[in-house]
Amino acid sequence: MNRVCELFGIKYPIIMGGMSWAGTSKLAAAVSEAGGLGIIGAGPMRKDDLQREIDNLRRLTDKPFGVNIILVSPYSDELIEVVIKNKVPVVTFGAGNPTKYIKDLKENGIKVVPVVASDNLARMVERSGADAVIAEGMESGGHIGEVTTFVLVNAVAKKVKIPVIAAGGIADGKGMAAAFALGAEGIQMGTRFIASKEADTHENFKGLILRSGIRDTVITGANLGHSARVIKTRFAKIVKELEVKSPEEAENVLVGSLRKAVLDGNLEEGSFMAGQSSGLIDNIKSVHEIIEEIVKEFFETIDRLKEVGF
Amino acid sequence: MNRVCELFGIKYPIIMGGMSWAGTSKLAAAVSEAGGLGIIGAGPMRKDDLQREIDNLRRLTDKPFGVNIILVSPYSDELIEVVIKNKVPVVTFGAGNPTKYIKDLKENGIKVVPVVASDNLARMVERSGADAVIAEGMESGGHIGEVTTFVLVNAVAKKVKIPVIAAGGIADGKGMAAAFALGAEGIQMGTRFIASKEADTHENFKGLILRSGIRDTVITGANLGHSARVIKTRFAKIVKELEVKSPEEAENVLVGSLRKAVLDGNLEEGSFMAGQSSGLIDNIKSVHEIIEEIVKEFFETIDRLKEVGF
Repeated sequence: MNRVCELFGIKYPIIMGGMSWAGTSKLAAAVSEAGGLGIIGAGPMRKDDLQREIDNLRRLTDKPFGVNIILVSPYSDELIEVVIKNKVPVVTFGAGNPTKYIKDLKENGIKVVPVVASDNLARMVERSGADAVIAEGMESGGHIGEVTTFVLVNAVAKKVKIPVIAAGGIADGKGMAAAFALGAEGIQMGTRFIASKEADTHENFKGLILRSGIRDTVITGANLGHSARVIKTRFAKIVKELEVKSPEEAENVLVGSLRKAVLDGNLEEGSFMAGQSSGLIDNIKSVHEIIEEIVKEFFETIDRLKEVGF
Repeated sequence: MNRVCELFGIKYPIIMGGMSWAGTSKLAAAVSEAGGLGIIGAGPMRKDDLQREIDNLRRLTDKPFGVNIILVSPYSDELIEVVIKNKVPVVTFGAGNPTKYIKDLKENGIKVVPVVASDNLARMVERSGADAVIAEGMESGGHIGEVTTFVLVNAVAKKVKIPVIAAGGIADGKGMAAAFALGAEGIQMGTRFIASKEADTHENFKGLILRSGIRDTVITGANLGHSARVIKTRFAKIVKELEVKSPEEAENVLVGSLRKAVLDGNLEEGSFMAGQSSGLIDNIKSVHEIIEEIVKEFFETIDRLKEVGF
């Protein structure tokens, strides 16, 4: 039995990435219905928004799901309350050390799964009681660290005993098999689920993912202390220049820019957060098709590896 | 039969990275003797240096080997002549598009294997007659591109029919199995071979690799147009600051800095080029032990994957 499936009570160890604006209850419900673990991205929400999204998800599916909370949110305390009140099965945490919330959530029967960008943080959250960790490489979309999936997953899996879920650069069954070879027992995908029929993300965003090659993302915010991988649009280039010339102005143009990308498809002022895996994605499919194809290719890849000899 | 083994006439599809200063004939001979493909790093050499190294390697082993030539070398023409005169079995190329040399080398029966950091360049060199490509992710040590091993190997393997050798972030059999899952048929390692008994690299360099965690490398030269991953020493931090404040001064302090690291172990003025895989390496072993252990773990990893079910 796969430990990630067991932990969450799901069919396939495939988790949806925590995505602000793009991580809607509709998309999360589709992932959960297809056998994975859908995640509502509570990043920019306040408590009423989150309550509405949880209610909507529960209208669409009775399967397990999760909520992603980012620790830099000024509303994380009230979001945690909503999560506990609603007995949300799983909470994933982005960016930072969620130790202070772990005990409270666990006492309420909620599984806690922090995202980590280093092996040391993985060890630390394990000691604090985390049920699993998401080891997220710097090829991921959105806010990132410095270590790549290849090295991070390997190092984290050596360091902790709880299950490791690999994230960053994964969009197909070959990537899933590679992640398992490195020691992961599950995968998390964000960009691949944005390029789905059920995502309400603006068509311009989906179009950018389809057209992007593997070299068409760039890191903005490195000089501002919050690196984020985005698709290399003209706006992204402007942000990178501003960061050096005028960090304050860069911060100003970034305010609301993810919302403008996801909801409005605003090519002039939007931050299209997406991973290098954009270069591996060239179709829009239903979440069900995406997941079934990945699982199929995962097992085909293992069958291919069995034949290797020298 | 593995195509990389077949192409080079070697036992295991494990290639030594092209390393200036660290890629000696002694280390290359050890890799070839152990069943891999040793590579003399001709980066900083002139023709007489390379001739001497080839002669020395041939005294140490009669197994196949290669020479790595970097295209930015002002001496690449004369190095190519030496390679042809000596009927060197394999040439790997770093940094750039070696199309102009491919025809000449192939007519002389020499296998040509360019290093690529993008899927488009991989396709281009395949069309020009390359026998295989090394897809090198940005977690590698030394000069690097932007795409990670996880995404690059997957994308390159989709784009070309010739064998793909994965490089960047690989230091053990789990990494090798992950690379094969992504579509590679061989691996290249640099940092792991520096941390070997047969490497004449200065003890200070080996010590830095052993002590480094996965987050202890940094990219210098990004602002100078030649990004290189090095261990995060005080010198590396100074270079990064100078790059922004005074690019010319940064270029000046970088001159000879790799030589100072490899030969002198100069912690104050050396560029210790090494990959994120430094964080996965915690011992110095013989090349023979390193290779045998990797092959063993590679097959153990595949056996473990066979048991995965959900």
